[in-house]
Order: sequence, then C-alpha cells, then structure tokens
Amino acid sequence: MRALVVADRLIYREDYPVPQPPPGEARIRVVRGGICNTDLEILKGYFGFRGVLGHEFVGVVEALNPLPGTTPHVGIGDRVVGEINCVPCDSPARNAFERAQDPSRDTLGIDRRDGAFADYTVLPIVNLHRVPEHVSDDEAVFVEPLAAACQVLEQAHIKPTDRVAVLGDGKLGLLCAQVIAAAAPCDLTVIGKHDCKLAIARERGIRAVHIQEAPLRAFDVLVECTGSPAGFEHARQLLRPRGTLVLKSTYHGLPQVNLTMIVVDEITIIGSRCGPFPAALRLLEQRRVDVRPLIHARYPLAEGAQAFEHAQRPGVLKVLLDVA
Amino acid sequence: MRALVVADRLIYREDYPVPQPPPGEARIRVVRGGICNTDLEILKGYFGFRGVLGHEFVGVVEALNPLPGTTPHVGIGDRVVGEINCVPCDSPARNAFERAQDPSRDTLGIDRRDGAFADYTVLPIVNLHRVPEHVSDDEAVFVEPLAAACQVLEQAHIKPTDRVAVLGDGKLGLLCAQVIAAAAPCDLTVIGKHDCKLAIARERGIRAVHIQEAPLRAFDVLVECTGSPAGFEHARQLLRPRGTLVLKSTYHGLPQVNLTMIVVDEITIIGSRCGPFPAALRLLEQRRVDVRPLIHARYPLAEGAQAFEHAQRPGVLKVLLDVA
Repeated sequence: MRALVVADRLIYREDYPVPQPPPGEARIRVVRGGICNTDLEILKGYFGFRGVLGHEFVGVVEALNPLPGTTPHVGIGDRVVGEINCVPCDSPARNAFERAQDPSRDTLGIDRRDGAFADYTVLPIVNLHRVPEHVSDDEAVFVEPLAAACQVLEQAHIKPTDRVAVLGDGKLGLLCAQVIAAAAPCDLTVIGKHDCKLAIARERGIRAVHIQEAPLRAFDVLVECTGSPAGFEHARQLLRPRGTLVLKSTYHGLPQVNLTMIVVDEITIIGSRCGPFPAALRLLEQRRVDVRPLIHARYPLAEGAQAFEHAQRPGVLKVLLDVA
Repeated sequence: MRALVVADRLIYREDYPVPQPPPGEARIRVVRGGICNTDLEILKGYFGFRGVLGHEFVGVVEALNPLPGTTPHVGIGDRVVGEINCVPCDSPARNAFERAQDPSRDTLGIDRRDGAFADYTVLPIVNLHRVPEHVSDDEAVFVEPLAAACQVLEQAHIKPTDRVAVLGDGKLGLLCAQVIAAAAPCDLTVIGKHDCKLAIARERGIRAVHIQEAPLRAFDVLVECTGSPAGFEHARQLLRPRGTLVLKSTYHGLPQVNLTMIVVDEITIIGSRCGPFPAALRLLEQRRVDVRPLIHARYPLAEGAQAFEHAQRPGVLKVLLDVA
C-alpha cells in the first residue's frame, strides 16, 4: 500500500505492507488525514519514532478481528475516527480516559505503532467512534485535536465568572478557544501574534488581542497553546495569583521555569493531553464549533513531502492529506 | 529596643526604635521566635529585604490601636501568634486567605515590614490569633509553618485511598508529614536523606524511607519540601501519571523543568504558601501533632548571630530565639 514513512526523513512508499488487524483490532481504509504539530516535531527527530506517520484521520472500517465472544460496536463500511492510545487486550484500562495514561499503551503514528498517513491503518476496535452523517470528512479529521481541546474542560472547572485566556493562535489555540467558547459562558480572550489567525477567532465572536495588549496578572484560567518556553513564562505572568494554567503543548528541551513564583502566587498548573472523542463529535455534529476556517491546504498522499513543507511555513494552520 | 537587623549582614542592635502601631494594628512584646529557612535565604540576599528579621514568633499583646468603631478580638496581655501577610485598612481582602495573596500586602520580616526577632513587633490586629492555654510558647512558635503545612490540605484533596509522599525530611517536610498523617487516613510516606530526621517521622508512626528506596511513578500526591531543583525533578518522577505535585518551597534561580513530561503525564502542580492559623492551633491544642522533637537548639536574642550559624549547619532542624 501507499504510506508516508518516517525514516531518517519522510519517505513516500508504495510498497508498504498492508497491516493485518490482530485480535481485538480493525483495519480502516483511510480517507483523509491532518498534519499536526506533533508530526512536524517527529520529523525533527523528537520521540524517536520510526514507521508510518499520522494520528489525525477519518476512514472506513474495512476488516474487523473482534475478540472471541465480543460484538463490535462498529461494522464494516462504517465511517470512523479513532483514539490514538492503544492498549493490549489484557490491560486493566476500562475506558479512553484510562487508556490515555496506561503504561502499556502505544500511540498511533507517535510511539511504536504505525500511523494513518497510508491507505490502511489498524487500531483496537474499542478506539473507534462512528462519525455522524452530517459531519464531513474534512471536519472529522479534526476530532482528535478537538478532543484534546475538550480535555481542558475535563480537567479544569471553568466557571461563568472566570476570565479565561487562550495563549497562542495556532491550530490548537483556535480549537481550544472555540471549545471553551462553546461550552462555558466565561469571559474569553484569545491572545496571539498573527492578525489573520486572530481574525478566525473574532469571526466566531471570540475576543482576540495581540500579545502586547494582553493585561498581566488578569486571568483566572490560562490555556497555554504556544509550546514555547517564552509562552510558558508569559502565561504565568498573565495569570492572577491562585489562577490555573493549563499546558496543552509539549516543549522542546528543558525550559527554565520560575518555580518560586509558582509557589508565591500559588498557581495551579495542569498538564493536559488527549481528550474525549464523543464530546468532540457532539460539538461538530451540533455545529457548535467550526473547524473549516482552519484548513489552509490539501495535498494527495503521494505529495506528502510537499504537504509537510507547506505545513511548516509560518502562519499556516491545518494541512490535510487526501488519501482515498 | 533589641533587634536582629538585616543590613549587608545580620546585626544585633540594642538601639532600634520601638515600633508604634498605626491605626488597626497592635504592638506585641515578643516572647520567642523561630528561625525559618526563609530567614536563612534572606541573609543570603534573597528577596532584598532590609529591616528586622523574623516571622515565626509568639508574644503578648502590649498595645492596641483599633480602627474607630471596631472592637478588637484580642486584649492587652493576650498571648498571640500572628499571620505574616499584612494589608492596608482599605484593602478589599476579607480574610486571611485573601490577605495572603492581596497585591497591596507587605510581609512580616520578609517584605517591607519589620519582623519579630526583636523586643517588640507590630501587626494588624486582624492578623492575631490567641494561643490556647495548653499550647506552650515553644509549640506556638511553630504555628506559622504548621499553618503553611495545613495549606496543603486546603488546596489538594487528599483521599483515604491516596498514596501520598512528602519529599524532604527538613522542618517543613516533617511538619507537612505530621499534618497529613493527622488529617487524612491515606497511605503516607516521608522520603528523605537523613536517618536522624526520618526517625522523627517514624516515632510518630509515619513510614519513612531513604530517597533511594522510594518507588518511581507510585504516588498519587507528592508534597515537595526540598526546595531544590533536583528535588522537583525527583518529585515529578515519583508521581504517577495524573498525580498531584504540591510545591511548598521556593527555589533558587530558574530551575530547568521537564514541562513536556508534565503534559504527557497530565500532572497537576499546585504552588502552596501560607496557610490557616486556626487549623494549626487546633492541631497543637488537640495534640494531633508534636513539634517539640524538631527543636534542636535555643539561643538568647543577643546571640542571634550564633543562632543563625547553628541553624545553617547541615542536619539542624528548628533553632529558637528566646526574646523575653
């Protein structure tokens, strides 16, 4: 089959073996994929991943290999998206929340499991979620990062009286802002550096300001989506004492952190990662978020190298890969 | 009056002016003081403090200057301890919790307010708490750090099923361990490096292990009391994914922090500082903690320099100053 494979660089292959689903898993014919910042970081060598790249996708179930005595909740031909954290059949993890931190997990296209930028991908059947009819393929590709944005609401109690800021106007920042705006009647501001990206928030009725205009020590909850050490330090300064700082991005290296001010200001920091797919699908189905303005380009799978080159340009948001 | 004053070094003076309480404040004749690690850091130049040192004390109310129309809750001759965060009369702060983070606050012996290592000290009347009869002066000196230990319980919900560790067997670590053991029927371990200090925990029936014996990724809640960057990193590694890390100490400089693993493991970090005096007084009055084994030495005020030299020796816990 065709696949975008990470070796010492990204390689488009047409001879990659079609994966066979082991017991409990399904093979999915991939329709569309989305390039995530994590994919860009993997190409720079982070995580040490080797194999088929890609963890944001929508596809169609093509083969099921259910465990004996189980009845799959999806059928052949169903259009699905898939959670990326995969655990063995004998894991004690009872649900997606537990699978996301199971020590025996591997992760689609990120950690010891071939990903979705290929004709076919394989995932445990329990990881799959049917996509509602009225959610398009382009939208469904966003379910994984949208679920990660929903995880903010799962971990932090955002109250109607809270002043909330999302720091960063990239893909994840704009998704977090839309999810918070859709779910919590709080006083929300997106803080960024790029007028064209801030405009996407404003078109959704969300206040958006340039980073130099943001008031210091003003926010009850701050969602850090820049992934840069400078962003982390700035986030801390934007937060009021006893505020909550949610970290959505990973960081290169070991940033220097003012731990003393975290103690003096009694700040709470919450590391936040993968989130609930059903909530993300509901937001899309109910049209409470609109991910389509984030799509900046699309390429066929065979032009994956160009797609990645495009995704790395400054100011570019989501680049899609048309697989089928 | 006599006072231990921070200038370019610690100076014992006998000619320091007796402080006059401004409206809303009281003058307290100091009986006993306790040397805190923060005092040692101030002597090294941290915080840039100049003036009378000391914020752990017990004393007797000697003069009251209540605001017009108010009736003080303490009287002349009452034995008291005092919260260290002081706000102006017109501050909107309604209670000790709010005063502790009020942006207009100064702090006894730490930040722009003369401290308690002197014959007399001055504090707002609202900051004072009467000491119950059965709590000795030696014990009452510990109310301030014991209240800081209680703040852990105020901020983190420690459940009966939690595996909890206190990292650090110094003064604050041993107080936090005793407070948690007294308040929560959780599975508690103190982790340290000094057999003689760990023995103090063991004598109270608290499990205590050497740092090299502590299991990694095992604890639901970890209270970091070392104040060292290495301690912070070790604390993170001891914590299970989705665990809670409470920071009780300030840190020198800007430690390098693995922010990525905080995100990947979805750890919650809580900065924790001053705490509730009434809870600390209750623990002492009800004999649910015993602070006396932490007292390693006592000196008269005039020998303050020797007291500080002693307090800085490795392995030394609390050094008291006999003032009156």
